[in-house]
Amino acid sequence: MMKINSEIIKAICLTEGVEPDVLKKKVSEGRVVIPCNLKRKIDRPMAVGEGLKTKVNANIGLSKGHSGMDEELKKMEVAIGAGADAIMDLSTGALLNKVRKKILENSPVPVGTVPVYELACGDNRDFKSLREKDFIEILEGQAEEGVDFFTIHAGITLEAVKYAMDNPRIMNIVSRGGALLASWMYMNNKENPYFTRYDDVLKILKKYNVTLSLGDSLRPGSVRDATDHLQISELLVLGDLQKRALGSGVQVMIEGPGHMPLDQIEANVKLEKLICHGAPFYVLGPLVTDIAPGYDHIVSAIGGAIAAWHGADFICYVTPAEHLGLPDLGEVKQGVIAARIAAHAADIAKGVKSALDRDINISKARARRDWKEQFRLAIDPELPFMVRKRTNPSEEDVCSMCEDLCSIKRTEEILKFKKEK
Amino acid sequence: MMKINSEIIKAICLTEGVEPDVLKKKVSEGRVVIPCNLKRKIDRPMAVGEGLKTKVNANIGLSKGHSGMDEELKKMEVAIGAGADAIMDLSTGALLNKVRKKILENSPVPVGTVPVYELACGDNRDFKSLREKDFIEILEGQAEEGVDFFTIHAGITLEAVKYAMDNPRIMNIVSRGGALLASWMYMNNKENPYFTRYDDVLKILKKYNVTLSLGDSLRPGSVRDATDHLQISELLVLGDLQKRALGSGVQVMIEGPGHMPLDQIEANVKLEKLICHGAPFYVLGPLVTDIAPGYDHIVSAIGGAIAAWHGADFICYVTPAEHLGLPDLGEVKQGVIAARIAAHAADIAKGVKSALDRDINISKARARRDWKEQFRLAIDPELPFMVRKRTNPSEEDVCSMCEDLCSIKRTEEILKFKKEK
Repeated sequence: MMKINSEIIKAICLTEGVEPDVLKKKVSEGRVVIPCNLKRKIDRPMAVGEGLKTKVNANIGLSKGHSGMDEELKKMEVAIGAGADAIMDLSTGALLNKVRKKILENSPVPVGTVPVYELACGDNRDFKSLREKDFIEILEGQAEEGVDFFTIHAGITLEAVKYAMDNPRIMNIVSRGGALLASWMYMNNKENPYFTRYDDVLKILKKYNVTLSLGDSLRPGSVRDATDHLQISELLVLGDLQKRALGSGVQVMIEGPGHMPLDQIEANVKLEKLICHGAPFYVLGPLVTDIAPGYDHIVSAIGGAIAAWHGADFICYVTPAEHLGLPDLGEVKQGVIAARIAAHAADIAKGVKSALDRDINISKARARRDWKEQFRLAIDPELPFMVRKRTNPSEEDVCSMCEDLCSIKRTEEILKFKKEK
Repeated sequence: MMKINSEIIKAICLTEGVEPDVLKKKVSEGRVVIPCNLKRKIDRPMAVGEGLKTKVNANIGLSKGHSGMDEELKKMEVAIGAGADAIMDLSTGALLNKVRKKILENSPVPVGTVPVYELACGDNRDFKSLREKDFIEILEGQAEEGVDFFTIHAGITLEAVKYAMDNPRIMNIVSRGGALLASWMYMNNKENPYFTRYDDVLKILKKYNVTLSLGDSLRPGSVRDATDHLQISELLVLGDLQKRALGSGVQVMIEGPGHMPLDQIEANVKLEKLICHGAPFYVLGPLVTDIAPGYDHIVSAIGGAIAAWHGADFICYVTPAEHLGLPDLGEVKQGVIAARIAAHAADIAKGVKSALDRDINISKARARRDWKEQFRLAIDPELPFMVRKRTNPSEEDVCSMCEDLCSIKRTEEILKFKKEK
């Protein structure tokens, strides 16, 4: 059994409305993960998986020439304020170690990283000349610092990289960590060190109770590349690795696509659940079309809602800046809200009771034209207030669209007429 | 057979990639409609229905105390510029007739209205005292002016209104036209004039070839009210009315929900297609949650994509200002883009070939880091250009998120290494 503080279990059971025994059983079966490094105190712990509310992750982090440390900490605040359940620090560039430490110090929610980025941004910039053991050793340092979950691209094999090079897709490899590993493997003609030394990886993760997020290096980067040989063959490897991790007492979830036509999403979620023995599914998107840069938070909300409805457990947000550059504060907020809309809409369909209750309550407030209460219950209390203020309705209890033709008021008049009759 | 200009048929066949005989057959079977008033010349005609691209409508129009004529005409331009296939003028207030005429003069795409609004905003403001024949006569004037499609709430019966008043839902009646009619019916204890005088309605519509859009007065206004007795009983009436319209040589489509949990959408689309004999389905949303005022374009994009994938043919946009007030120009654009994303994502899943081709082409440009071409093919060419400009990447052919760690460039290096080996 994984080592998880009983206070954390208690807190999660309270917010999820589940029994501790049920939660613990699901964790031991690998159907739920609770990312919480033994070295770190998390103010708002959370669990991801079967029967729980759909969770949302926000990626932040600076790159070589862009954004400052304060800006990234501010993004973290904005993301959590908008409702992100977890944060991944995907920083690259020289300041990467400093940013990670700051985020770990300040984040009230679980923090994830992709440790291979530190290898790519260290003093030794020649990635190709790294030794096998460098890939493993980098994990210990970040685990010791308190990172709660690691994305590790252990499932991309040398055979798969060769297949990818012989059968190029439109977008080939779009995972940053995956592409780094693929180039190291192909140029050195060596197997993936996270694959060959997987037992060493698991030993470190178990020691700190770092949750393993098995990365999908070969996720499709275009809807045309979706559900192909490469994507599914990697998933098969991830299924085996999931079993080994669970058997070694390491919590594990599986990362998923990516760009994907909406009619393929249900099958992909079901496939993941079957091949990976019910492990939590952590999806990026899915993005249901490639044609909307600037609006990929909307594209992802469509895919994320469908995925979560069919069983995906954890949605990685996508911001309007995806495919274009690092997001700013406003785009971080938009990304989180869009992902939360997807998660919430899916939770209604999944039958999470507290989800539907919130809709009932806001609709009752709407029916009363109780604007204050409606905004209080809204996914973003600020924006609707400002929109209404701008549109300046001529009467207090209607809006500027219908005014005295308000259908709700008209219906109330019929009910009043009925009573007086 | 409906009277439709052969030039219009030709133009539509060209953009849709279908044969004229196939299109004509579908129109005669009521599976496709081509909204085009005989009195008006439409520069960009379009068809709605089975086997065709999913279309998008944008609602514009001023209300009593808000927005000016020029502003509404500007909204029309913005909506069509962003890709709306049709416009509905939902103006209310004293200027309603003037706005409609201006829009009919200037719109290159089909224009729809809800004629009962004119009755509600005329000199005689006492709606209750209107006579049956007023409801019919108002149609002739707007048809003569050239309106291409009318929303007429012929399916709400006195029995249904009484049922609604005896069994109130959370949001009761949220259709503006539906609530007006319901109050007239209930307070006068009279049947719906559009129902009792349906043959007179059809006569006028046939004369001008105005397409009938059968309104859903009892659409759910909260996810909790979805797929209930009221909604489905109205649909059954609409199915009968659809058959009568088609039999009288009137083109007809069916309007649909509304607020609806995402797991109910497929069943609702299939039900509409079965009950209404394959008639085109024109959906508002569906909005898959009630909790996101300010973001209802995203909420609707999720529902619209799922609906269109399962066969809905025409998506009415929802703007971020929905439930709050009249949208401004920026919100009109956001609403159209979100609905077009939903329509396009559904078209990929539906197998519309030109849809997937566009994704392939933009992804090829993305793989080449050909930003100019990528933006040219994007659903909105302006916004991604501005986002990229703001984020100011340090190298020309990467973005500020990954910079030299760009996965696409890394993969190219592997391919180059392979070639040189």
